[in-house]
Amino acid sequence: MLDLRPVGYVIGLLVAALGLTMLAPLVSDLTTGNGHWPVFLEAATVTTLFGALTALACRNGVTEGLTIRQTFLLTSLVWIVLPVFGAVPFMLGATNLGFTDAFFESMSGLTTTGATVIGGLEALPEGLKLWRGILQWLGGIGIVVVAMVFLPELRVGGMQIFRSEAFDTMGKILPRATEISSRISVIYVALTLSCAVAYAGTGMNSFDAMVHAMTTVSTGGMANFDASFGAFGAGAHYVAVVFMILAALPFVRYVQLIGGHASPLLLDRQVRGFFVTIAIIVLTLSLFLADTVHGFTEVAFRESLFNVVSIMTGTGYSSADYMLWGPFAVTIFFFVGLIGGCAGSTACSIKIFRYQLLFASIRTQIKRIHSPHGVFTPRYDGRTVSDDILNSVMAFFVAFIVSLGLVTVALGLTGLDFITSVSGAVAALGNIGPGLGPEIGPAGNFNGLNDTAKWILSFAMFVGRLEVLSVMTILTWHFWRA
Amino acid sequence: MLDLRPVGYVIGLLVAALGLTMLAPLVSDLTTGNGHWPVFLEAATVTTLFGALTALACRNGVTEGLTIRQTFLLTSLVWIVLPVFGAVPFMLGATNLGFTDAFFESMSGLTTTGATVIGGLEALPEGLKLWRGILQWLGGIGIVVVAMVFLPELRVGGMQIFRSEAFDTMGKILPRATEISSRISVIYVALTLSCAVAYAGTGMNSFDAMVHAMTTVSTGGMANFDASFGAFGAGAHYVAVVFMILAALPFVRYVQLIGGHASPLLLDRQVRGFFVTIAIIVLTLSLFLADTVHGFTEVAFRESLFNVVSIMTGTGYSSADYMLWGPFAVTIFFFVGLIGGCAGSTACSIKIFRYQLLFASIRTQIKRIHSPHGVFTPRYDGRTVSDDILNSVMAFFVAFIVSLGLVTVALGLTGLDFITSVSGAVAALGNIGPGLGPEIGPAGNFNGLNDTAKWILSFAMFVGRLEVLSVMTILTWHFWRA
Ligand SMILES: [K+]
Ligand SMILES: [K+]
Repeated sequence: MLDLRPVGYVIGLLVAALGLTMLAPLVSDLTTGNGHWPVFLEAATVTTLFGALTALACRNGVTEGLTIRQTFLLTSLVWIVLPVFGAVPFMLGATNLGFTDAFFESMSGLTTTGATVIGGLEALPEGLKLWRGILQWLGGIGIVVVAMVFLPELRVGGMQIFRSEAFDTMGKILPRATEISSRISVIYVALTLSCAVAYAGTGMNSFDAMVHAMTTVSTGGMANFDASFGAFGAGAHYVAVVFMILAALPFVRYVQLIGGHASPLLLDRQVRGFFVTIAIIVLTLSLFLADTVHGFTEVAFRESLFNVVSIMTGTGYSSADYMLWGPFAVTIFFFVGLIGGCAGSTACSIKIFRYQLLFASIRTQIKRIHSPHGVFTPRYDGRTVSDDILNSVMAFFVAFIVSLGLVTVALGLTGLDFITSVSGAVAALGNIGPGLGPEIGPAGNFNGLNDTAKWILSFAMFVGRLEVLSVMTILTWHFWRA
Repeated sequence: MLDLRPVGYVIGLLVAALGLTMLAPLVSDLTTGNGHWPVFLEAATVTTLFGALTALACRNGVTEGLTIRQTFLLTSLVWIVLPVFGAVPFMLGATNLGFTDAFFESMSGLTTTGATVIGGLEALPEGLKLWRGILQWLGGIGIVVVAMVFLPELRVGGMQIFRSEAFDTMGKILPRATEISSRISVIYVALTLSCAVAYAGTGMNSFDAMVHAMTTVSTGGMANFDASFGAFGAGAHYVAVVFMILAALPFVRYVQLIGGHASPLLLDRQVRGFFVTIAIIVLTLSLFLADTVHGFTEVAFRESLFNVVSIMTGTGYSSADYMLWGPFAVTIFFFVGLIGGCAGSTACSIKIFRYQLLFASIRTQIKRIHSPHGVFTPRYDGRTVSDDILNSVMAFFVAFIVSLGLVTVALGLTGLDFITSVSGAVAALGNIGPGLGPEIGPAGNFNGLNDTAKWILSFAMFVGRLEVLSVMTILTWHFWRA
């Protein structure tokens, strides 16, 4: 029998903590005097009470550690239960959303997807803007911890390639989860504050600077304006580019950097691949934009840089409606979303290291094909890659592409057109945010979709955030039988 | 040094043979008295002479067998050189095409893609209609032989899983290539004649019956009418469905069937997976069509059946403009094209057995994830699948998806819109034929595309027909260095 109490205990504590964080928007609404604060008092009370009672009820079942199955349930249930409570302020508050919309917005926030069903963001009370930022910020730190602590242990999607590395880096004396989480949290907070200060330096008011810093370092992408970063100038764009990139690099490298070791960051194959890919795509698109829209100006370069970095890191801000840049740009933005950032960051989607491993494997295959009797082994970062890891990465890639197909078909079945369906599936599974086309593209939002489509997309965000295979594992009969 | 003479010799012979087959359309044009026959006399003379002279020139270098590198060059060069000569009648003849268009049409024919740049097919002289059919028919038998004889030996894209099987089936006494080719050819001819007779039985005139039989059993899909099978009635549709399916099953099973063994065909996992997949998709789309367009009629079932089978087998006929069936149907047709038929048939694209192997691998991965200390091995058809084969299949899948992305981006760069680019890439790489959207969809043709796009698509057809990895192998520096 699977003992659910240890899982319930941790989730209860996390829900209670989420309830307490609702005091921040409460304070914010009190400060600005907009009279919206009772919403957060109510939501905080309900959430904290529910969380505390659950934790209390499960307390007698708490053990030293968690089994693998309990860990799986925990990492998955967290991303279902927290969005339910995160949705409460959207239902009670000025947005007055139904449960479908509120859950979508909350799931989109916590999974750092950033797709929104709310139009007219400018009119939101400060508390709700802040709440969206907080959801994304918590989701961002949550996923870094999950990606660095749990997924490598669970051997999901090839993440085990980073297992020994994280071990070596962190030392083996302190319990890993606590040690890693606390070090990473310090870095995360430092990044957020630096980002906020930098935004304020470009002339953003302090409230916007703080909220956008939270949605930048989490690569979340929710903005306080319908025009996203179109509401800001060049300075804010460049600051955003720097911090979106910082948020998409492997956080373990910052731990090493603080320990005085810069070379792991500078020599990291993921990092190099990430920068080379960005450089090539930005250059191509800049030339294209210079040729067709903006001429050879700083604007052509900046618009290209900002939006490519935003989509590739899975942030999802936009500084312009790139649907108007013509079919080539649209095609580029579709595929950039399938690349993603580095593992062990807040970024999402398929991720650079998986492509590198898959390409290494293809190179090995090609060598085997024309020298059938030779022995070739794919290498990554100087080490040979085991078939176990390759199979795991491959399973992830295929599961991702097939999920993409299924989500697209399901969305099509609800009546969405092809480009909305397929780009919506990428945007949700890759936790990016905006899709393509007039409806869910950079100039639109997800409000007009039917309820079924919103539930499908909420599920896709959940699946994408847990690296697809975790969810598949839980959905097997085998998992529940044992 | 790579000795090119044995390769040149075989290619010379094949070119000469192609030249001789041009006598068939010559006779056809003479018989119908349309005065178009000198075109084929000219083309046949040039082609046969060139082929014969090349073979003669290379004759002194002919050896017993071919090395692996020579085999690679041969299988690739064949699909470049033959299309060049196959294009001659389109340049000299009534179509009066430029080289870009003529090469596209010829490549599309020989790779059994079936995409066409010719509008107003009804007005073509009989010889040219027949020539399109012949190109597809030759391409079809060619690819079965390559897929059964060469690719398993070359260990491309997981085809080696069929190696021992083909060995066992064919016996080891006769040289395999000759033995397999001749047995398969007999079956291919028998299928073609049966198909032609069946078409004639539905009221098709004998010329159309013959040409469409050739483009059916090759899963080529070129038709004599702009409306494709919209020009025919229900009887022809059902006949086409039967023969498109027969052409997409593994031909080795027919050899066994003739030898008195029906069970290999009936128990084949590919075949079962193929039928189950078709059944599910046709049922879903029929219900959708019944609900939205046709009501619960035979037409809803037949339109769904015909077009799904056509795209999934990679034939590419259409009986209606399914772009008008709404976004869900469009989405379905996009993904059906990525499934494909069985290995060892004339069908193309990713193919059923690769999905089965990949899913088996994902199941194994999921088991490993929640029982990290267990030992699990993926199985296919009762046998364990080696990591070598899995890696090979994975390499194919990734290479296919990445090629799809690159071709789409390249097409976008020439100015095509997103749906035309991405569906054109699938249609060409999967050797299917029609894409989606108003331009290259079932109601359009490829004539209006720019020349660059046509060359990109021609290259994509070539890459797709050679299972992607063969082409990549040849493009490596390593291949030429040794
Ligand atoms: K995002
Ligand atoms: K075809």
